[in-house]
Amino acid sequence: MMQNMKLPGKTVERLSEYRRILLNLLAEKKNYIYSYELAALLHITAVQVRRDLMLIGYSSGARKGYDIRELVETIGRIIDSEEGLNVAIVGMGNLGRAVASYFRGKRSKLNLVASFDNDPQKINKVISGVKCFDIKTMEQTIRDLNISIAILTVPPDAAKNTCDEIVRYGIRGILNFTTVSLKVPPDVYLEEYDMITSIEKVAYFVKENLKTQG
Amino acid sequence: MMQNMKLPGKTVERLSEYRRILLNLLAEKKNYIYSYELAALLHITAVQVRRDLMLIGYSSGARKGYDIRELVETIGRIIDSEEGLNVAIVGMGNLGRAVASYFRGKRSKLNLVASFDNDPQKINKVISGVKCFDIKTMEQTIRDLNISIAILTVPPDAAKNTCDEIVRYGIRGILNFTTVSLKVPPDVYLEEYDMITSIEKVAYFVKENLKTQG
Repeated sequence: MMQNMKLPGKTVERLSEYRRILLNLLAEKKNYIYSYELAALLHITAVQVRRDLMLIGYSSGARKGYDIRELVETIGRIIDSEEGLNVAIVGMGNLGRAVASYFRGKRSKLNLVASFDNDPQKINKVISGVKCFDIKTMEQTIRDLNISIAILTVPPDAAKNTCDEIVRYGIRGILNFTTVSLKVPPDVYLEEYDMITSIEKVAYFVKENLKTQG
Repeated sequence: MMQNMKLPGKTVERLSEYRRILLNLLAEKKNYIYSYELAALLHITAVQVRRDLMLIGYSSGARKGYDIRELVETIGRIIDSEEGLNVAIVGMGNLGRAVASYFRGKRSKLNLVASFDNDPQKINKVISGVKCFDIKTMEQTIRDLNISIAILTVPPDAAKNTCDEIVRYGIRGILNFTTVSLKVPPDVYLEEYDMITSIEKVAYFVKENLKTQG
């Protein structure tokens, strides 16, 4: 019934977070979990957890709580693509390399198959576990390797042009880690993350806490 | 009236994003903006923008829209600390260095004053514009430099211990970029960002869009 209805973005984020935590628990040999336990690990309410899992058609009948392995599989069926999707990192500076190291081997359904840079020192080498291609070959490489998702880590002054290019070359989803806000056509999905926003949020609550605690 | 009431986290995030965009517009010599224009740049509704700005006591009387310079100042009075806050990066691998480069010179009220690492090659050097201290001197340095915010970019297996240490040394807010979920006492503010969640979200919408578009 949910097959043809897109979930809200925030729900998808939480499903991804549930799975990350559940996989860690499985590795620690835990097999069942109650909604309130999962909620506590994520600093959210148990009602929120139950609502999200009902939305993907999952409910706990057992007194032992949710079966973790089963729940991981259910979440995978909802959020993963069956055939897997190919991902490239565009821009292999410090951030691109950090993303590559971070990403490698994390999820079986998302394959990091290429990175791109214009630095001759990097081109045709394997960097942080992924082959770096000449950015000039991007059009061909995106097609040859059937890449549909790009993680954008180029310098800010290159962000707009690079984004327009990869959209033209057939990229369907972009995670933008540059400081520049981008625009894409409606059939391309764009997610932007600006770490300054996270830091300013932390700073706001530190300031407010210091105020009330004197 | 809002002085003693904490804003919701999501509102603070949006205020930070409004400011980032408004500062870019000021640099492009734009002086006024309508709520619907600001909303379009952030891919949200104009109602949301007006509600957020009303919440911080700001309303547009003029037919020209909001005065951008005034609005930037108002947002600053709400989210910034008057005296500024000192920030450190803990862990100067690729990600730590990327954060340092990204952060430098971005916000006048948040001062990146130190970084920490255990690599002798890095200690006592200036890396990506910030001095790297021996992680063994963290307790002293956090006190000496009055550091209240830490950005955590250590390897995953060091995350829990490092977090416990910096909390003991007086850190009041943590931005956790490691893959490990952390726990902190209630008087410390913790913000966690896991890039895998963002990538899985992009992948989900790419998959769904491919499904409907065939």
